[in-house]
Amino acid sequence: MAERKRYLFVCVNRRPDGTPKGSCAARGAEQLHAELKAMLKQRGLAETEVRACTSSCLDTCWVGPCIAVEPDGYFLGRVKSADLPEILDGFERGTRVERLVLGPSDYVEPKELKRQT
Amino acid sequence: MAERKRYLFVCVNRRPDGTPKGSCAARGAEQLHAELKAMLKQRGLAETEVRACTSSCLDTCWVGPCIAVEPDGYFLGRVKSADLPEILDGFERGTRVERLVLGPSDYVEPKELKRQT
Repeated sequence: MAERKRYLFVCVNRRPDGTPKGSCAARGAEQLHAELKAMLKQRGLAETEVRACTSSCLDTCWVGPCIAVEPDGYFLGRVKSADLPEILDGFERGTRVERLVLGPSDYVEPKELKRQT
Repeated sequence: MAERKRYLFVCVNRRPDGTPKGSCAARGAEQLHAELKAMLKQRGLAETEVRACTSSCLDTCWVGPCIAVEPDGYFLGRVKSADLPEILDGFERGTRVERLVLGPSDYVEPKELKRQT
């Protein structure tokens, strides 16, 4: 094993059921991380190219499940299992899945969720 | 809240006592993360500059506790509580604490630990 070219940090924070902003784990992030790890191994990328770690809250709960893609320095949000092959293809090609990349407004908690919390 | 300039991923993986390569949690990483979070808040850096998350295993157990500093793209290893003020000063100044930055050989598990595992 060696330093990987990329590290993915999949938020697996779980908040109590009914929390208005929800949480990545409640949206299926744990399963997503397991699938990602298996796919990276299957594609032969796990040992040198990409390592998939879990992380605590990335503070973008409302657009979860979220994945910090590093050192590229962007977050993917609203990620579904069906998106994973395209995400991994992108790593191999050097491209990003732009429709999932969070923009500045995604980092701000929507007011209507804040009021209820 | 907004996107932070930096995200720190403090490995808090815990392996069973007696595991030859040890683990970051066994070396005090959970306490380190809590201290880091408190110091970032105290310095007024938590909301915009630096977010301290925990992560699962970064695969550099033998030089733990380890912190992935992103998107800078380097790992700090063998981090002690006493190092934290210097690490945070570095973020504010735009410098790294070079003596703690992992080099290529640090990413390779020492053979003597592998044989016993």
